[in-house]
Amino acid sequence: MGITTGIIMGSQSDWATMKEAADILDELGVGYETRIVSAHRTPDRLWEYGRTAVDRGLKVIIAGAGGAAHLPGMMASKTRVPVIGVPVQTRALSGVDSLYSILQMPRGYPVATMAIGAAGAANAGLMAAQMLAMNDADLAARVDAWRAALTASIPEEPRDE
Amino acid sequence: MGITTGIIMGSQSDWATMKEAADILDELGVGYETRIVSAHRTPDRLWEYGRTAVDRGLKVIIAGAGGAAHLPGMMASKTRVPVIGVPVQTRALSGVDSLYSILQMPRGYPVATMAIGAAGAANAGLMAAQMLAMNDADLAARVDAWRAALTASIPEEPRDE
Amino acid sequence: MGITTGIIMGSQSDWATMKEAADILDELGVGYETRIVSAHRTPDRLWEYGRTAVDRGLKVIIAGAGGAAHLPGMMASKTRVPVIGVPVQTRALSGVDSLYSILQMPRGYPVATMAIGAAGAANAGLMAAQMLAMNDADLAARVDAWRAALTASIPEEPRDE
Amino acid sequence: MGITTGIIMGSQSDWATMKEAADILDELGVGYETRIVSAHRTPDRLWEYGRTAVDRGLKVIIAGAGGAAHLPGMMASKTRVPVIGVPVQTRALSGVDSLYSILQMPRGYPVATMAIGAAGAANAGLMAAQMLAMNDADLAARVDAWRAALTASIPEEPRDE
Amino acid sequence: MGITTGIIMGSQSDWATMKEAADILDELGVGYETRIVSAHRTPDRLWEYGRTAVDRGLKVIIAGAGGAAHLPGMMASKTRVPVIGVPVQTRALSGVDSLYSILQMPRGYPVATMAIGAAGAANAGLMAAQMLAMNDADLAARVDAWRAALTASIPEEPRDE
Amino acid sequence: MGITTGIIMGSQSDWATMKEAADILDELGVGYETRIVSAHRTPDRLWEYGRTAVDRGLKVIIAGAGGAAHLPGMMASKTRVPVIGVPVQTRALSGVDSLYSILQMPRGYPVATMAIGAAGAANAGLMAAQMLAMNDADLAARVDAWRAALTASIPEEPRDE
Amino acid sequence: MGITTGIIMGSQSDWATMKEAADILDELGVGYETRIVSAHRTPDRLWEYGRTAVDRGLKVIIAGAGGAAHLPGMMASKTRVPVIGVPVQTRALSGVDSLYSILQMPRGYPVATMAIGAAGAANAGLMAAQMLAMNDADLAARVDAWRAALTASIPEEPRDE
Amino acid sequence: MGITTGIIMGSQSDWATMKEAADILDELGVGYETRIVSAHRTPDRLWEYGRTAVDRGLKVIIAGAGGAAHLPGMMASKTRVPVIGVPVQTRALSGVDSLYSILQMPRGYPVATMAIGAAGAANAGLMAAQMLAMNDADLAARVDAWRAALTASIPEEPRDE
Repeated sequence: MGITTGIIMGSQSDWATMKEAADILDELGVGYETRIVSAHRTPDRLWEYGRTAVDRGLKVIIAGAGGAAHLPGMMASKTRVPVIGVPVQTRALSGVDSLYSILQMPRGYPVATMAIGAAGAANAGLMAAQMLAMNDADLAARVDAWRAALTASIPEEPRDE
Repeated sequence: MGITTGIIMGSQSDWATMKEAADILDELGVGYETRIVSAHRTPDRLWEYGRTAVDRGLKVIIAGAGGAAHLPGMMASKTRVPVIGVPVQTRALSGVDSLYSILQMPRGYPVATMAIGAAGAANAGLMAAQMLAMNDADLAARVDAWRAALTASIPEEPRDE
Repeated sequence: MGITTGIIMGSQSDWATMKEAADILDELGVGYETRIVSAHRTPDRLWEYGRTAVDRGLKVIIAGAGGAAHLPGMMASKTRVPVIGVPVQTRALSGVDSLYSILQMPRGYPVATMAIGAAGAANAGLMAAQMLAMNDADLAARVDAWRAALTASIPEEPRDE
Repeated sequence: MGITTGIIMGSQSDWATMKEAADILDELGVGYETRIVSAHRTPDRLWEYGRTAVDRGLKVIIAGAGGAAHLPGMMASKTRVPVIGVPVQTRALSGVDSLYSILQMPRGYPVATMAIGAAGAANAGLMAAQMLAMNDADLAARVDAWRAALTASIPEEPRDE
Repeated sequence: MGITTGIIMGSQSDWATMKEAADILDELGVGYETRIVSAHRTPDRLWEYGRTAVDRGLKVIIAGAGGAAHLPGMMASKTRVPVIGVPVQTRALSGVDSLYSILQMPRGYPVATMAIGAAGAANAGLMAAQMLAMNDADLAARVDAWRAALTASIPEEPRDE
Repeated sequence: MGITTGIIMGSQSDWATMKEAADILDELGVGYETRIVSAHRTPDRLWEYGRTAVDRGLKVIIAGAGGAAHLPGMMASKTRVPVIGVPVQTRALSGVDSLYSILQMPRGYPVATMAIGAAGAANAGLMAAQMLAMNDADLAARVDAWRAALTASIPEEPRDE
Repeated sequence: MGITTGIIMGSQSDWATMKEAADILDELGVGYETRIVSAHRTPDRLWEYGRTAVDRGLKVIIAGAGGAAHLPGMMASKTRVPVIGVPVQTRALSGVDSLYSILQMPRGYPVATMAIGAAGAANAGLMAAQMLAMNDADLAARVDAWRAALTASIPEEPRDE
Repeated sequence: MGITTGIIMGSQSDWATMKEAADILDELGVGYETRIVSAHRTPDRLWEYGRTAVDRGLKVIIAGAGGAAHLPGMMASKTRVPVIGVPVQTRALSGVDSLYSILQMPRGYPVATMAIGAAGAANAGLMAAQMLAMNDADLAARVDAWRAALTASIPEEPRDE
C-alpha cells in the first residue's frame, strides 16, 4: 500500500480535528502521510511540498487549517493535485473565518471544501478515497462496503438514553 | 472523448452559473453531459441518475443548486462517484443558504464544495479535470498548460481603465 | 387513538431535541410514531416513508435534522402530507445551517419551519395538533385548554431565585 | 367555495410579495380573503381578527410581514388556527430580521415559517392547501395534480437563453 | 417616591437579566414596578398594561424579552410612553434574534433598543433615569454623581489578577 | 417654540437619512437644530456640543452615523442628555457595522438605538417627541393625534398597484 | 522622493479600489510602486517580492485582495516589512470573506487590516504615511496638515442637495 | 530602552487579552507603558493621551477594546501616531461588534486592526515592533530572529497528545 494521500495541517493543534481523516483512510486501507505545513510559519515547506507532490506520487492532498486559513488555497496554487480543504473550528468565529478563507478561491484554483470541524475532516478522508476509487476497483468496493455498513447501522426508531 | 462528467443543476435558472463549468471542460477537452435534476421536483430522476452513475461510466458529478440546495448532498448519498457542489447565489441570502445546505454534510457523504457563484462553477470544472487527471497524463498536461497560461496572463502592473 | 403523526429525525442524536415534540403530542392525546430516517444514510427509507405516508393514514409529518438538513425538504418532495421542520442546533453554526437547509425551499415544496432547537420541537408538536384540530373538535378543545393553562401559569411578578 | 383561508399582511407594500400566496390559492380553488392587519398600527384589528377567526370559519391564516415582523406571532397568540408566516425581504437586512422575528417563537405558539420573500409566499399558499387537503379529498387531488404538473414541466437539459 | 417606571419582561427567566435595570433604578432612587407580561402567553395583560400606562402615571417602560421578542414593540404600539427595549441573550442565536425583533420597528413605533444582555439591562435603567431627569433636577444631580463616580473608579493602569 | 432637540450627524451624506427625523419633528411642532458633528474629523466640536448641551437647554439629542459610528456613543459619554442613535445604512455591511458600533455600549452610557436607515431616523424623531411629551401635555396630545392618524390611514384590504 | 511603499493587489480588478491608496500617497508626497501580485496565479512573484522587499528599500507594503484573500497574509509571512491589508468588496459576501481571510492571522504574522472597500484603501495610504512619518518630520507635518484640512472642510450644518 | 509604545485598553477586564501584546514587546525588548483609557468613562483621559502622544515621544499606540469599541478610532482621531486596534472577544457577539467598531473607520482615520482576541493582541505587539524596526536595525534583527525561531519550532509531523 503506497502513500497516495498527503494529510497536511497548519499546526499541531489541528491534529485533533484532522485525525478523523487519517482514521477513515486507515479504515479504507488508503496509504497516507501526515505533515505540519504552516502557510505562514513554514512557507518554504509549503512551496516544496507543492512543488514535489506530483513527482512524489501524491494523488490527493487533504489540508486543514483555521482562522486566516491559507494553507489549502496556497497548496492548490502550487500543484494540480486535487486539494481537499477542511475548515478547523475557531474560538471567536466558529470556523466561519476558516471556511471563507478556504472556500472563496478565485477562478483557476479550486479547493474541495468540506464541512467545518471533525465531520468535515472525516469526509475529507472519504472524498480522497472516492477520488482514488475512480481508478481502483478494490478501493471502490471497500468504499461501497463502508457506505453500506453505515446505512445498515441506522436503527429504525430512536431510543431514550 | 467519452462522457466522464455529469453537470447537473436544480433548475434552468442555474444554467447561467453552471455554464462556467461546461466552458472550462470544453477548454480542457473533457467530455460531459448536462442535465436538470431537481431534488424536489424530480426526485425520481435524481434517484435514477445516482443509481446508474457508476454503470454509465460517470467518473465525476458537478451539481449546482440554490437556496435549500439538496441536490449535491442527495446525489452524494446515492453514488460513490465524487460530487462537486456549486452554491448558486440567491436573492435574499446571497447564496449563504445554498452554501450551508451543500457544505455541512454529515460524516459519510462528502460534497466537494466550491465558492459561491460563477467562480465556483468554473472551479468545479477545473476540480473535475484535476480529479480525472489523476489517471490521464494527457489531461494532466492540458491542465498544467491551462494553469501556466493563466499565470502568464497576469500583467506586472495595474492599468487605469 | 390512531397514529396520525410521524415524528422522524436524521439520527439518534436528534432524539434529545425531538422528544419535546413527542411529549407535547402525549399531553394532547395525539397518536404518533417515531422513526430514524436519515436522508443521506437511508435514502430508500426516506423514499418509502414518503411514498406510503398518505396510504398509511399519516396526516402530519414532523421532521427534525441538523447541518445540511435535507430530511424535511426531501420528505416534502415525496408526499403532500404537510411537513413540519425542526432545525436541530449544531456545534459550529448553532443551527443556522440546519435552518437555512430546511427553510429556504423552492416554490412547490413548503416546509413549515419551527424555531431552532428544543422550543422548535415542542412547537412542532403543537402545530401538528393545531392542524389536526382543524377537523377534530375534541382535540381543538384540548389545545384550547392547553393554551389557557399556559396563560394561567404566568405569575404577575418575577421573583428572585 | 367558502372562505377558509385568511391572507393578512402588515402593510400595503407587502402585497407584492403576498399576492403569490393568493395566486396559488386561486390555482388550487381555495377560497380566501385578504386583509391588511398591522400589528403596530392596527393592534385592535389584529386582536379582533384573531378573536373571531375560529367562529368566522377560518381554517388557516397566512401572515406576511417585514422587519420587526410581529404579526404572525401575535396572531398565533390570539387563535389556535394554524398560522403560516412569510418573512418579507427588507432593505438593510434582506429579511433576516423578518425571519428571526417570525421564526423564533417561544414554546406554545408556533408559526409555520416559510422561505424569505416571494417563494415563501407561494409556498404559504401551498402549505395552506396541504393542510386543508387533510380533510378534503377533492382538494388533495388538485394538490397532487399541481405537483405532478410541476414535475412534468422540468426539461431534461438546460438550454441557452 | 412614586412609581414612574415599569420594568416588564416576557418570562421569569428574563429576570436574571432585567434585575440589572432594577438595581440601577434603586441606586438612583427611581420608583418602579416589575411585571411579567408575556406578549404571546398573556396578550390581554399586555393590552391592559399598555392601555392604562399613561393614566397610571407611568413615564417610562423598560421591556426585556428574548427570541421572537414582541413585547417591547407591541407595548410601543399600545402607548405613547417611551419604551426602552432590552434584547435578552438566547441560546442558539446569542440574542441576535431578540435584537432584530426589538430594533427593526416600522415608522411610527420606536423602541429605544439597548445592548444585548446584562449591560443592556443596566443601561435601560440609566436611560430611564436620564429621561426622567429631563424634568427632575434632583434626579439629574444624582445621575451626574453616578456618572462622575463611575469615571472616578477607573484606575490609571491595569493590574495582573 | 424653543429648540429642545439637537439632530447631529457624522457627515453631510447622512443628511438624506436624518432628514426623516427633522420632518417628524416639524410635523409634531418640536423645535430643533441640525449640526454636522464628526466624531473623528471634528472631535473638539463633539466635545463642545456635549459639554454645553444641558446649559444650552437641549433635552434630547438625535445622533446618526455610519460605519464605525462613534458619534452617538461618544456624545452619550459627554452629557446626560438622552442620546437617540440612528445607524445609517452602509455599502458593504448594510449598516450592521453602524448598528453594532452604536448599540453595544458598555454599562453606564446608554444609546437609545433605532432601526437601521430611514425608518430608524423617522422613529428617532418620534422617540424624541415621546420623551418631551412626558412633561408637555400639548405635545402629548399631538403625538396621540399623529398616532391615531397613522392608524386611521391603514386600508382594510390590499390593492393591486 | 524614493519609493518607500509598495502597493500590490491580487488582480487588475482590484485597482479600482486600490487606486484610492495611490491617490492619498500622491497627495502626501510619498513615493510608491504598484504591482499585480496574485497569491494563487503568480505565487513565485509573491515569493520574490517578499524576499527582496527589505533589500529593495521598501518600508511599507499595502496589499489589497478579495475573496479568499491570501496575498496580504502570505506577504506578511515572507517579510518583516509591515503589511497593511485592504479587503476588497466582493459580490456574494460583500467582502466579509476578504476581511476574514486578511484579518484572522495567527500569532506571529500580523496584517494591519483596514475597512472593507474604497475607504479602507484610502486609509491604507494614510496609515502607510503615518508609519513613515514616525521618522520623517516633513512627512509628519504634511500628514498633520492633511488632517487639519479635512477637519476644516466639515460644514457646521447639513444642507439639502 | 525608552518608552516608544503605549498599550491602552478600555477596562481592566481587557488586560487578560492585552497582556499578550506586552509579553511580545518584552520578548523583543521594546519599551512600553500600559494605561486604562476608557473612551466613555474617561473621555478626558483619552483626549489628553491623544493630544500629548507625539510630544511624549510615543511612536505607536496599541488600543484594545470590546463591544462598541470606540477607543482605537477616537485615539486615531486625536493623534497621527499610528494606532493598532485589538477587538476584544465579547460574550453575545464573539467580538464581531468590537471588530466592526474598530475596523470600519471612515476615510482619514485608519486603525490597523488585528484579529479578534489573544492572537490579535500578540500580533499587535509584533506589528508595533515591525513599525519601530523600520528605523531601528537592532530591533529589526531581533524581529527577524523571533520569526526565524518561530519557524524553526514547527515539527514536521503532528503527534498524538
